[in-house]
Amino acid sequence: MQRFPEYLLAGYRSFMGGRYTAERDRYRELAANGQQPRTLLVACCDSRAAPEIIFNSSPGELFVVRNVANMIPPYEPDGQYHATSAAVEYAIQVLKVENVVIMGHGRCGGIQAALSPSSTPLSDGDFIGKWMKLLKPAAEQIQTSSLLTAGERQTALERVSIRNSVSNLRSFPFVKAREVEDGLRIHGAWFDISTGELWIMDDETGDFVRPTL
Amino acid sequence: MQRFPEYLLAGYRSFMGGRYTAERDRYRELAANGQQPRTLLVACCDSRAAPEIIFNSSPGELFVVRNVANMIPPYEPDGQYHATSAAVEYAIQVLKVENVVIMGHGRCGGIQAALSPSSTPLSDGDFIGKWMKLLKPAAEQIQTSSLLTAGERQTALERVSIRNSVSNLRSFPFVKAREVEDGLRIHGAWFDISTGELWIMDDETGDFVRPTL
Amino acid sequence: MQRFPEYLLAGYRSFMGGRYTAERDRYRELAANGQQPRTLLVACCDSRAAPEIIFNSSPGELFVVRNVANMIPPYEPDGQYHATSAAVEYAIQVLKVENVVIMGHGRCGGIQAALSPSSTPLSDGDFIGKWMKLLKPAAEQIQTSSLLTAGERQTALERVSIRNSVSNLRSFPFVKAREVEDGLRIHGAWFDISTGELWIMDDETGDFVRPTL
Amino acid sequence: MQRFPEYLLAGYRSFMGGRYTAERDRYRELAANGQQPRTLLVACCDSRAAPEIIFNSSPGELFVVRNVANMIPPYEPDGQYHATSAAVEYAIQVLKVENVVIMGHGRCGGIQAALSPSSTPLSDGDFIGKWMKLLKPAAEQIQTSSLLTAGERQTALERVSIRNSVSNLRSFPFVKAREVEDGLRIHGAWFDISTGELWIMDDETGDFVRPTL
Repeated sequence: MQRFPEYLLAGYRSFMGGRYTAERDRYRELAANGQQPRTLLVACCDSRAAPEIIFNSSPGELFVVRNVANMIPPYEPDGQYHATSAAVEYAIQVLKVENVVIMGHGRCGGIQAALSPSSTPLSDGDFIGKWMKLLKPAAEQIQTSSLLTAGERQTALERVSIRNSVSNLRSFPFVKAREVEDGLRIHGAWFDISTGELWIMDDETGDFVRPTL
Repeated sequence: MQRFPEYLLAGYRSFMGGRYTAERDRYRELAANGQQPRTLLVACCDSRAAPEIIFNSSPGELFVVRNVANMIPPYEPDGQYHATSAAVEYAIQVLKVENVVIMGHGRCGGIQAALSPSSTPLSDGDFIGKWMKLLKPAAEQIQTSSLLTAGERQTALERVSIRNSVSNLRSFPFVKAREVEDGLRIHGAWFDISTGELWIMDDETGDFVRPTL
Repeated sequence: MQRFPEYLLAGYRSFMGGRYTAERDRYRELAANGQQPRTLLVACCDSRAAPEIIFNSSPGELFVVRNVANMIPPYEPDGQYHATSAAVEYAIQVLKVENVVIMGHGRCGGIQAALSPSSTPLSDGDFIGKWMKLLKPAAEQIQTSSLLTAGERQTALERVSIRNSVSNLRSFPFVKAREVEDGLRIHGAWFDISTGELWIMDDETGDFVRPTL
Repeated sequence: MQRFPEYLLAGYRSFMGGRYTAERDRYRELAANGQQPRTLLVACCDSRAAPEIIFNSSPGELFVVRNVANMIPPYEPDGQYHATSAAVEYAIQVLKVENVVIMGHGRCGGIQAALSPSSTPLSDGDFIGKWMKLLKPAAEQIQTSSLLTAGERQTALERVSIRNSVSNLRSFPFVKAREVEDGLRIHGAWFDISTGELWIMDDETGDFVRPTL
């Protein structure tokens, strides 16, 4: 039997000796009674932007979807399987979360790929190429902004993408219904890996601003 | 502007005052030089099984996909977008991770849904119904195991599903190629929310065993 | 004789009783020996972004030009009078400053006017309309970025304008000469009125980043 | 990336730890609601005569134009761009300031240049030479006052220049209109760098006198 990566086992030992020991009752209760997270958090796969670390979350608090570039596709009831839409449906309809947070971040490799599509796909399946096509119209518009630096275009698309996902999320009839009738709240957020800054989307203007802490 | 959830802001304040302050240099370096995670970790959205907590991970260590029931679909180069396959492609082809870990967990709501499909879909789109169809043949077989308790059937399908995903992952030609030529290692793992136990899949037998710690 | 504004006299009394008293020797020495500021700072007229306050400057430190939107026009040796170019010439050729800082700021009314030119000029002279035409090509390009919010377009043009001014500044032969031969350094900066944040322009990429403090 | 001048960063740190912290609410309110300065202040670029320091001003109080020798050119609706006239127009027509203060100061390098024009221009563009031509008739007359000392000629021209600017300011039709119809008040002032004395122009006689404090 091949050996499980040693650094992960070392981390797991720390967890068991530390956090699990400290929160054993909480884990047991969460196992017995089931999860009741108040928030669905859609984040990127990026190794530098884990939501539970950024929000110092306890077990049971965040129901977390992570895909490349933290995107929610539009509502497509087409009979195909959709990983992200399935998670949204489960969070909204079964878990009855109160909040959805779509959290992007700086220096996102997926956004970079959308702005500079490689001439040759990463594999014959071209999965990244197709996934990032969800952002193609936005990426093409932003690429024409020649007065912006490459870094500014990247940040711009990261934020446009969050607004896109918020808009796509509202295209799901059951999301819209819970927002209108049941007080479901939808938030955008953007994390700066370098400075640790969290920027929150103003739901009226779409601007990202620093929250009062 | 609506207020961002207060408990998330409180958690973020803790992060900034604690972990970010302690790891500022690491965050800055990761921002400047980019991420180089050694592991792609595929986990469930469940709020009780966050990989960075279970493995006590530092920023930059784990590239994390999270979908309902931590599944990898089969290789389908069909021109549709596939969130999970895109993340796999990016991790393997761009980040060149050394390990893939597919981590399931006990009391998984998605697995439960696969074993007891609701007669009425959760929404008109029936996204969970379709997503869990990836497990339908396995779920149907296990449902006939009348000698197993409901709990045993659930655990059984959780583990069958991990083996399924490992097998699906190897259907991606570029994954197979890196496994054969480049030492990429693929692991299964299963986390018990109640006891905190981590079980590792024996890659020869497919059994789940407790690792030597 | 009309009365000088009372609140300005009150402020002046505070100055005389406080800062002037504390720095009397410095004022006398600066009067006797002349000024030797190390920095030319080009800032906006805006009442919320005074450079001496933001940099907590002592008398004698900053030679300050302030015009609407902190712009440096291109080099135009056309025999007309040019307030800003005259100040640049004086700072570079007479005072031999070591640094030039062009500091913009958020929520700039001049930039706003460039992005939303009023249909009727503010006066028959249309001085603001003409002054902001220095930014017209940039403003027109940014106005087409329909995916950006109004706030994001404003911030983008504020920063593009700083890069424009840096570029215009280098079109002055005597500036370029001192930069090449004499180590003159040119910096861009952007001040956020709301948060007090100072962002510094990376002279290689043109991006604005938070300085390490 | 080149390093921003260290002494400016040190000053900025003092600002953030001191004045910004103390006036955070004011900055935020000024950012949210916009500036409403009551006074347009036209001052010199000189590093020893910063208006916000001399009047101990709070953010939001003074809309400040600074050019060499604090001059307002005559009204010239000629289709060229005019930095100073644009700022005047914005302050009067958009901000609706109640006061204009034109503040000169002693030992002004620009005035000195007007009295002793260099035989060779400071650069091929001769920007200072042209800018100071706005004062040429006055400078030539004062140069013939052979009974005055050099120091007295300098102070004389500094004050003549302020009266010139007041007169030029009234040549703007929209300024004159607001002065006549709306109570706009126009003031001259002169600051002695050495003693810290502020002298106020008597609007009836044009004399400069010490205000009652």
